[in-house]
Amino acid sequence: MLRTHTCGQLRAEHVGQQVTLCGWVDTARDHGGTLFIDLRDRYGKTQVVFAPEGGAAQLEDSRKIRGEDVIKVVGTVAKRPEGTINQKIGTGEIEIRVTSLELLNKSNNAPFNPTQADLPGEDLRLKYRYLDLRRPEMQRTLKLRNDIILEMRNYFADNDFLDVETPILGRSTPEGARDYLVPSRVHNGQFYALPQSPQLYKQILMVAGYDRYVQVARCFRDEDLRADRQPEFTQLDLEMSFVTHHDVINMIDGLMKRMAKKFLGMDLQLPLPHMTWDEAMERFGHDAPDLRYGCELIDCTDLAAKSDFRVFKETAEAGKKVRGINAPGGAAFYSRKLIDELTEFVKQFEAKGLAWFRVEPDGKLWSPISKNFTEEQLAGFAQRMQGKPGDLLFFVADTWAISCKALHNLRKKVGVDLKLYDPKSYSFSWIVEFPMFEYDAEEKRWNSMHHPFTAPRPQDIPMLETDPGKARAVAYDLVINGSEAGGGTIRIHDSATQSKVFGLLGIDAETAKNRFGFLLDALQMGAPPHGGIALGIDRVVMLFGQLDSIREVIAFPKTQKATDLMTEAPNLVDNKQLRELGIRIATNDTK
Amino acid sequence: MLRTHTCGQLRAEHVGQQVTLCGWVDTARDHGGTLFIDLRDRYGKTQVVFAPEGGAAQLEDSRKIRGEDVIKVVGTVAKRPEGTINQKIGTGEIEIRVTSLELLNKSNNAPFNPTQADLPGEDLRLKYRYLDLRRPEMQRTLKLRNDIILEMRNYFADNDFLDVETPILGRSTPEGARDYLVPSRVHNGQFYALPQSPQLYKQILMVAGYDRYVQVARCFRDEDLRADRQPEFTQLDLEMSFVTHHDVINMIDGLMKRMAKKFLGMDLQLPLPHMTWDEAMERFGHDAPDLRYGCELIDCTDLAAKSDFRVFKETAEAGKKVRGINAPGGAAFYSRKLIDELTEFVKQFEAKGLAWFRVEPDGKLWSPISKNFTEEQLAGFAQRMQGKPGDLLFFVADTWAISCKALHNLRKKVGVDLKLYDPKSYSFSWIVEFPMFEYDAEEKRWNSMHHPFTAPRPQDIPMLETDPGKARAVAYDLVINGSEAGGGTIRIHDSATQSKVFGLLGIDAETAKNRFGFLLDALQMGAPPHGGIALGIDRVVMLFGQLDSIREVIAFPKTQKATDLMTEAPNLVDNKQLRELGIRIATNDTK
Repeated sequence: MLRTHTCGQLRAEHVGQQVTLCGWVDTARDHGGTLFIDLRDRYGKTQVVFAPEGGAAQLEDSRKIRGEDVIKVVGTVAKRPEGTINQKIGTGEIEIRVTSLELLNKSNNAPFNPTQADLPGEDLRLKYRYLDLRRPEMQRTLKLRNDIILEMRNYFADNDFLDVETPILGRSTPEGARDYLVPSRVHNGQFYALPQSPQLYKQILMVAGYDRYVQVARCFRDEDLRADRQPEFTQLDLEMSFVTHHDVINMIDGLMKRMAKKFLGMDLQLPLPHMTWDEAMERFGHDAPDLRYGCELIDCTDLAAKSDFRVFKETAEAGKKVRGINAPGGAAFYSRKLIDELTEFVKQFEAKGLAWFRVEPDGKLWSPISKNFTEEQLAGFAQRMQGKPGDLLFFVADTWAISCKALHNLRKKVGVDLKLYDPKSYSFSWIVEFPMFEYDAEEKRWNSMHHPFTAPRPQDIPMLETDPGKARAVAYDLVINGSEAGGGTIRIHDSATQSKVFGLLGIDAETAKNRFGFLLDALQMGAPPHGGIALGIDRVVMLFGQLDSIREVIAFPKTQKATDLMTEAPNLVDNKQLRELGIRIATNDTK
Repeated sequence: MLRTHTCGQLRAEHVGQQVTLCGWVDTARDHGGTLFIDLRDRYGKTQVVFAPEGGAAQLEDSRKIRGEDVIKVVGTVAKRPEGTINQKIGTGEIEIRVTSLELLNKSNNAPFNPTQADLPGEDLRLKYRYLDLRRPEMQRTLKLRNDIILEMRNYFADNDFLDVETPILGRSTPEGARDYLVPSRVHNGQFYALPQSPQLYKQILMVAGYDRYVQVARCFRDEDLRADRQPEFTQLDLEMSFVTHHDVINMIDGLMKRMAKKFLGMDLQLPLPHMTWDEAMERFGHDAPDLRYGCELIDCTDLAAKSDFRVFKETAEAGKKVRGINAPGGAAFYSRKLIDELTEFVKQFEAKGLAWFRVEPDGKLWSPISKNFTEEQLAGFAQRMQGKPGDLLFFVADTWAISCKALHNLRKKVGVDLKLYDPKSYSFSWIVEFPMFEYDAEEKRWNSMHHPFTAPRPQDIPMLETDPGKARAVAYDLVINGSEAGGGTIRIHDSATQSKVFGLLGIDAETAKNRFGFLLDALQMGAPPHGGIALGIDRVVMLFGQLDSIREVIAFPKTQKATDLMTEAPNLVDNKQLRELGIRIATNDTK
């Protein structure tokens, strides 16, 4: 090595030793003719000192050093003078008295300095990602990502899982999201697809007897990108044979306990709490509720039906819902202006309006609409909502689905506004028994809520024929702090049930054979009962690292336009390449 | 779990316990009304017994069971009767007396049985890969692969490496092999490329201060496939900052020692032997010599020049080479017919012919061409070649390059034919100081021998201007048993040298900026000295597992036509998908 130690290694016990350090110039400052440089690498910072007595030439050279230059210094470890010790960093008791300096590389024309306080916009940081990645925050995050994945790997190795690599060049199956395609040169006119997940391969591995499979798998979806999505992402993918959903959930419980202990210093109580999808929607309006605070949805449809307020009454009579949340102590926080903003806010989620009541010091409700209610009716709402003086009660009168969506989002906003929970705290839970299908009113057919290989609960199999919307799946989502960290299901392991589900999804036998024939074959040649789960690693790192953007947990992320600003990908390619692939770029004429 | 134990777990100590096992029916045989089934899973096999006293219904059901059915049995662990104990397997002392049987899944219509002795052809096995993967050999290999990769990961974690994921959707740079392209939907007419290696990203990570990077990286090359190549393959990719080549080599030496100990039971002596490229070519005619045996190339050009044999004399006078190998004891093995075959064999490698001499019992040489030599000349050859009675001496008279290629391949063949080494033994070594460039006579320009980012030896930098062909790179290949297991280089870390090398490769400033601008920029903004290596994991698993084909070490390999026979990828896709991507399939008219 060009160095004897890293910049995070030297301590008082090394005083007197001659050492060689290499690193980046973090800061340089002159104190009465002596130059102090903080030399930085991934492991820490060390103060190196160029004193006049070190030799005139040496000092002269050191004057040319600028921030982010890469240097090598030889010198002696010395105790820092009294009063200059820095207890905040590991190397804070010592400094290096430099006897020799070598400039390994200059830093010229950098558009920004990773140590500067006010960083430039994200686009510039992504273009010069190598500068941005020098920031200690980024280095901490990528270290955390490394550590989390390593911990996962070791946990599953301890539990007899085999890491098996599945292909990236796979087959296009136009289910779910849009595929990224790869034209074949050997078979012109045909295409590979990049995997949206290794779902089919991992089921095949179970049929092949691998019993416990795990992979940190790269997955690809060519979707219009939301803030927290990337065209390629990484998931912890696993599958187990001869299991029920309890076994998969227990396995992940154990992982979460180990990770919470190691990375959050938390002792998780197992089993993690479970809630059915029906209960989650009823209580929180969402299938990934944040359980760190209450403020639950409360159904007042029956009270609304008995009131004289036309909107409430008609909603109830139409079979829709009047549900509300209690924002505890909200009266002091939300001015009339802010309440108007909340009304606009819920309209984003298709609610037609937001009714609200303030709980007065005497416990009675007041609202601009209170004249539409009798005192008794108001008292009924107050009691149902457990309104205490100073609380604000919000109501949405709409379809069940819209009231779920609007109140879930309102609850999230109220939780933040009123600081109903410690944002640094954690809550882990399972949501189970999802519906098998969602009805697509436009296409007039059922869609899988998870994917077409999900097993129904055994007792719900008859419902596939009679009432598919009521059938519940053996499906489970892991929710951390109101985010879906992962989801899994027990799979269908017989080809008859699989064909029946394909039928409900509008996939006829011919199409099923064409797309998934190998899976249907495999299910007839000795398939064990099996199930699994996938966790979103980017999401998990975000949650464990308390980070806001997925681009902060990926070394080389793409923008929302799916562009890599550093390498400028995608880009134009030679016509020769396209000719070999047997494709042409469509012009407007030929599209 | 549906089971209490795996099929590899039960021992004499469990006798008397009630257990539940699940697995595949490996074999079923009837002995006097009692049915014996070997139940199989990834962990082993257990004998389960259906005795008539278990109940008539039970036995009746058991009669319907066929090989590869998936069953669950409940029963009691019993000691096997005297004389039926099988010491070869861990569960050989016990058997399960079944009290309850459940058929979890039938196996119907399987085109072959993974337990059958004579397996069908590879195409059928690839199509029904889930059956093929049930073979214990395949399961052992994928377990070995898992274990090797895990050991690598832990080794590098122990050595402070960070695993950083680099993008799969990258930029096309038409250097080296052909890229796989991915059309962009958001940017119609532009393309991503799948990475041939994470080379540029790992250098960027060094510039970003990550110091030690490692990744088990998927790489892609759209090349016409040789027997041991796949369109996608996996490499152990790493990079280190502030290092010389010694540091990278030492790091891999340590890995090999750990792996040889764990997987081969070998104590490797470190450092592993080194040899320069020049020496390897001179002594073995190849840059990845198998050092498990001698049979080295010996230069006899000077002797040939003095002989009267026209072919030898003219070759020597033309500045070409007459070199040979001594096949020890070869006279007894190689008949005249076999020698004729060897002559045809070396012609595949462009040699015009093969001269040979037999060392007679009296130590003198005999050959059909010996009349062209004086006795003294023959004695000279015999002495130079250390010919002992019974040896065969082979000579190729040709250009240096052709004699390297022909004799290297002849040496390999002789090594196998004459069993000059134990094929189960191992030899590890480093080949170092490769040429920077190879001259492409057709294109009349230099090509990189490794890649354009390879640093020349510092003392050879002036040669870049005067004699590029003589410049040697700080490059190193790890060779195991005559296979290149990996290769690496110290990289250029200043943009001036990088530009000079691009110039020699015929990449002008404009093109370099266009393709690698971000790297050239990065090299100017504080790049540390750095270098790394990549090991071919598929190759390493083949070598450690003593396997012959890369398709045996990959769960879902592609054929030589780059087809996945199981999923039938690549395949035709919907026109809608192509329209969204802004591409068309070229017809013959539009190509």
